[in-house]
Amino acid sequence: MKIMTFLTDFGFKNSYVSQMKAIALSLTDAKLIDISHDITPHNIGEGAFVLKTAVPHFPTGTIHVAVVDPGVGTSRKGIFITTKNQILVGPDNGLLLPAARLLGNYVVYEIQNPKYMSQLVSNTFHARDIFTPVAANILNGVLFEDIGPIIHDYVDLDFGKPEITDKKATGKIIHIDSFGNIITNIEANDIRKYLDYGQKIMVFIGKKRHKIIFEKSYGYIKKGELLATIGSSNYLEISISQDNASSKLKVKPEDEIKIFF
Amino acid sequence: MKIMTFLTDFGFKNSYVSQMKAIALSLTDAKLIDISHDITPHNIGEGAFVLKTAVPHFPTGTIHVAVVDPGVGTSRKGIFITTKNQILVGPDNGLLLPAARLLGNYVVYEIQNPKYMSQLVSNTFHARDIFTPVAANILNGVLFEDIGPIIHDYVDLDFGKPEITDKKATGKIIHIDSFGNIITNIEANDIRKYLDYGQKIMVFIGKKRHKIIFEKSYGYIKKGELLATIGSSNYLEISISQDNASSKLKVKPEDEIKIFF
Amino acid sequence: MKIMTFLTDFGFKNSYVSQMKAIALSLTDAKLIDISHDITPHNIGEGAFVLKTAVPHFPTGTIHVAVVDPGVGTSRKGIFITTKNQILVGPDNGLLLPAARLLGNYVVYEIQNPKYMSQLVSNTFHARDIFTPVAANILNGVLFEDIGPIIHDYVDLDFGKPEITDKKATGKIIHIDSFGNIITNIEANDIRKYLDYGQKIMVFIGKKRHKIIFEKSYGYIKKGELLATIGSSNYLEISISQDNASSKLKVKPEDEIKIFF
Repeated sequence: MKIMTFLTDFGFKNSYVSQMKAIALSLTDAKLIDISHDITPHNIGEGAFVLKTAVPHFPTGTIHVAVVDPGVGTSRKGIFITTKNQILVGPDNGLLLPAARLLGNYVVYEIQNPKYMSQLVSNTFHARDIFTPVAANILNGVLFEDIGPIIHDYVDLDFGKPEITDKKATGKIIHIDSFGNIITNIEANDIRKYLDYGQKIMVFIGKKRHKIIFEKSYGYIKKGELLATIGSSNYLEISISQDNASSKLKVKPEDEIKIFF
Repeated sequence: MKIMTFLTDFGFKNSYVSQMKAIALSLTDAKLIDISHDITPHNIGEGAFVLKTAVPHFPTGTIHVAVVDPGVGTSRKGIFITTKNQILVGPDNGLLLPAARLLGNYVVYEIQNPKYMSQLVSNTFHARDIFTPVAANILNGVLFEDIGPIIHDYVDLDFGKPEITDKKATGKIIHIDSFGNIITNIEANDIRKYLDYGQKIMVFIGKKRHKIIFEKSYGYIKKGELLATIGSSNYLEISISQDNASSKLKVKPEDEIKIFF
Repeated sequence: MKIMTFLTDFGFKNSYVSQMKAIALSLTDAKLIDISHDITPHNIGEGAFVLKTAVPHFPTGTIHVAVVDPGVGTSRKGIFITTKNQILVGPDNGLLLPAARLLGNYVVYEIQNPKYMSQLVSNTFHARDIFTPVAANILNGVLFEDIGPIIHDYVDLDFGKPEITDKKATGKIIHIDSFGNIITNIEANDIRKYLDYGQKIMVFIGKKRHKIIFEKSYGYIKKGELLATIGSSNYLEISISQDNASSKLKVKPEDEIKIFF
């Protein structure tokens, strides 16, 4: 089974996403799966995070078209990245890199050959005119080298490295999900040894400090109370049971968070 | 043809829905259909209503994964329900029951066998790690009894029983749709005999009373005027022609409604 | 490969879209693609524009079910339109006409034969009970004439004709996309000869005038600055690089725009 996914900041007020799918269906019978089209417009970091959380769950051979692309139509390159078992296609602005690194063994190619693009390439919609047809052509077996050469000077992006000691962890917020859960760049593996379920920790976030419980899941806490937990993508999250933590704590992506074990 | 549907309160700001679909596609080539991912977070009743309105239209053999799950990761059970012709999978919190009752002949099973879940089960995302793989395994022909036993002590949920006489009906609002149509728990079958199209009725709703017309559809009424009608799921609805009735009348789910014929 | 698309103003708070898809899947194994379900409720013009921008990209044989339908349940007709290579199905209120004209060689049929509708037709949901089953039956090879006769008295709709001289163009806003890009009814072909990339033009919009640059794409302009460009559907657009032009300029569809070359 062939699978092509889509991640964009295009929303659904217009037909942009369906135009990409129309092009895909002209070239391939792959299953078309939406990852998200609600990325905050032009927010490459948010797109990169959401893409990274999705890719490890997809089967071998899946190809992902991801486009958050404020530089469309300028000289920024178009790229595709092969990894251990999946392929990523999109603009050269860092969007694809965290997902590529997670998938492993990645190699970056520049898209150059117009043969695998649409015949007319618009200046403002490379998602439709370049990235989607290139992805479909890759699914159809076109050789990577025929699309363009391997490159080493691509734009990279990461979510920062938290400072962690046996007393505290200092990181930042990288994403707010639709429940208002606050997802940090502190990974479970790095702090799990300092924390037990049921343990109280001191958290500095949004200029205030909160004594909260580290728990397995939301339902262990009374409705309306704060908790820290390990989210489903293995990052530390701050949540409120059955309520919206980010709006209650008035925080946003890039804000600092400090945790004392 | 195999069909798997998804109903959640996850939204599309993040990749949660696509993670479920990625797992599904690793196990089955079923068609994947979204019912809704815009259920108000943690609102089990709204999810149950939307699910119930969808299921009767799906073909025999469809399997529905429905997850509005504030209790995830606690001791609340995971269940699946077989019915006359379709199957429902989700948390044991009442979400699935109105749909199951409508489909008929339903039997509730507890999900127990880890063999049919993902290898690593997170504490916060059973939709991805338990409900979706169990649904895919059922589509693939795994025996119900092999997944878990029939149970009788599950959580139930209904939308309340309106009081209806030949003079009046007293019920409540169960849902507001995206047009602002106000959907009540008063079923067409129970009141149709007291009402003719074109008839004026007195409606008490949102602490005010309104003399309005019962009509076949919105287009029979002048733009901006109130009407009562039978909606497409056979519940009595209060609407405004080409406008948003719920915001104009300032009402919300659970509010009482009284109708004098 | 069979493809059926859907465009509505139904949103995803409820199960309406999935009910249409459930009916489609009962009758056909076509690929089901969403164009948009976020059309402003009852806004036929917006729906017509979004549909028109999507259709030229779909493969031959695609059938589009489009429903923005404030007159549902009244005497307004249901129609389908055959074109050079695709088919459109929906209410007779102008919604389908701009797309039909763009596709070319179009012929309008009235839907009459109840044999190709659902057995019970509700008064408020013809998208599910008439348009979707008719579309599926057409995909399955039912003869057009068997569904209903060719008609000539259908409702038409266009986006107005801008006035263009070698000094200025006067048109109107027809759509705001999810980035806030302001899309006008001035087509690239009609003004391209008066404009070069990098040229400054004077634009009257939202009761103010702005001296702005006509450019190939957003990325050529400093973040936060206005530009005019040719959008991906070949209409003139006014945008702000990495910001929301429609909210900054406080404009809306139908507002006038004047451009001095």
